[in-house]
Amino acid sequence: MSKKVILREVGLRDGIQMARTFLATEHKRDWAKALIEAGVREIELTSFVPPKVVPQFADADQLAAYLPELGGAVCSALVPNLKGAQRAVQAGFRHINYVLSISEAHSQSNVRRSTGEAIEELRKINEERRVSGWPKVTLGVGLATSFGCTLQGAVDPERVYDVARQVVALGADELIAADTVGYANPSQVRAMLPKIIEIAGGRRVVCHFHDTRGLGLANVVAALESGVSVFDTSLAGLGGCPFAPGATGNINTEDTAFMLESMGYSTGIDIDALLKLRRKVESWLGDERYSGAIARAGLPKTFQYVN
Amino acid sequence: MSKKVILREVGLRDGIQMARTFLATEHKRDWAKALIEAGVREIELTSFVPPKVVPQFADADQLAAYLPELGGAVCSALVPNLKGAQRAVQAGFRHINYVLSISEAHSQSNVRRSTGEAIEELRKINEERRVSGWPKVTLGVGLATSFGCTLQGAVDPERVYDVARQVVALGADELIAADTVGYANPSQVRAMLPKIIEIAGGRRVVCHFHDTRGLGLANVVAALESGVSVFDTSLAGLGGCPFAPGATGNINTEDTAFMLESMGYSTGIDIDALLKLRRKVESWLGDERYSGAIARAGLPKTFQYVN
Repeated sequence: MSKKVILREVGLRDGIQMARTFLATEHKRDWAKALIEAGVREIELTSFVPPKVVPQFADADQLAAYLPELGGAVCSALVPNLKGAQRAVQAGFRHINYVLSISEAHSQSNVRRSTGEAIEELRKINEERRVSGWPKVTLGVGLATSFGCTLQGAVDPERVYDVARQVVALGADELIAADTVGYANPSQVRAMLPKIIEIAGGRRVVCHFHDTRGLGLANVVAALESGVSVFDTSLAGLGGCPFAPGATGNINTEDTAFMLESMGYSTGIDIDALLKLRRKVESWLGDERYSGAIARAGLPKTFQYVN
Repeated sequence: MSKKVILREVGLRDGIQMARTFLATEHKRDWAKALIEAGVREIELTSFVPPKVVPQFADADQLAAYLPELGGAVCSALVPNLKGAQRAVQAGFRHINYVLSISEAHSQSNVRRSTGEAIEELRKINEERRVSGWPKVTLGVGLATSFGCTLQGAVDPERVYDVARQVVALGADELIAADTVGYANPSQVRAMLPKIIEIAGGRRVVCHFHDTRGLGLANVVAALESGVSVFDTSLAGLGGCPFAPGATGNINTEDTAFMLESMGYSTGIDIDALLKLRRKVESWLGDERYSGAIARAGLPKTFQYVN
């Protein structure tokens, strides 16, 4: 029996949030459809951040109208606060992801509130979910800067665990350990993930790695061996980092799928179909930083999918 | 006690063998000197391949004249055959590396002889070393295409072990497991390296990974955990692959040093000094494919050397 690994595609959210080109809603829909055809089963489709903050997601409601066509995948939306959560659920999302920063400096810089205030906002979201009886809405919570912060520097793992415990107590269905700025290394991942999995207590744990400093795939292997089997990845490695202009973004979906299948983990993903989609996305977005080794070098002659 | 890892710099050999620019001998010397100043303690300095095959190394003898100035590092030379070995020793090298291909197709294509003939050539080199009483010349042997071949496809691990055993019996002081074309994955590395280490029977085992398909650093971690502590790396990730134009080359020295130090392994390398050298090398070589995440994104604010 092969072990299954889920790659949750975040290109349509993390990948394009800083893109120079405003992508048409229909292209976003086509992108998501092509992902599903390529075997992707989870997609973070958009964000309900205020349009004035990220204009790219001004069409979140319109894109949500296509959710019925995207039934082949679990589609989620990022929500920055209670209002965003209400909009997302209203628009039809049944899976929402809320992100808070472990680093106070990053929290203040990113959303102008303290980590404590961000936790309080999560309490409100969960309370709203409870009192409004949101039908089967699952709530994922991202722990940004879990492995370090460009602004603050080191992040104490104990603080990560402490916030993770609070987040679980406040109703999170899923914990997303996020290396927001590409600071994680395999030793750190192996030290921290077992503890986070323990705190999650059976809830799903996702790793969200950026490849900013080239360690993304090495971190995936370390996380796999720590028991993680869900990873956020981005087609073509899209996803900028405002603190490292020109640096690579999220770990690349094609490369991650290639590595996992080579190692005997089944992803269900058709890499050639992703490469075809990648070319389409490049034609839509134009000048962006696209990364990924498989797009350059091709699959090995010996490559075989697990199943 | 931190664990030490040796990065053997191969940029001056593997890195530039396909470069468009012919590098001046003095620049090669300056490159090697700067490496030593940056803490690099092993350098594959050149190759005694016939100049008509690789013109870049036509100055191997002249470069060898600088060996006395490069005493801060163990400098080795690649030798393609007995004649090359004789030239290298004559020129002053006390460490020579001979490479043979596990894949018959690669062996024929690369050096126009079978793997068996290449093993016979190794026998001659070792015999010459014995009868000529070459003073303290150590002989490393590279096992090219150990993890797969672009021409032949899959390579049977049993064949790798079999050749490794013959190579050890023929006097090799060191085995270099080489992923010549970027086919290796971490599971494969972890499956094969313990066996190769066993066959080496106390002799040093080096891993030579290319990052052609993005798995280079993940493979380093897998090899580390299998007991390997010496890796071939190339400044700026230089090192082309004729079968994947535009693809990344050898694993990048700066990124590998960064990863290892972050994980608590001491390399003795000053990464900032390497980045400075990298800019110099770029000015000498001009248009080449330079890769590496640290050169783009910089070291993390939290980065600390092990010692």
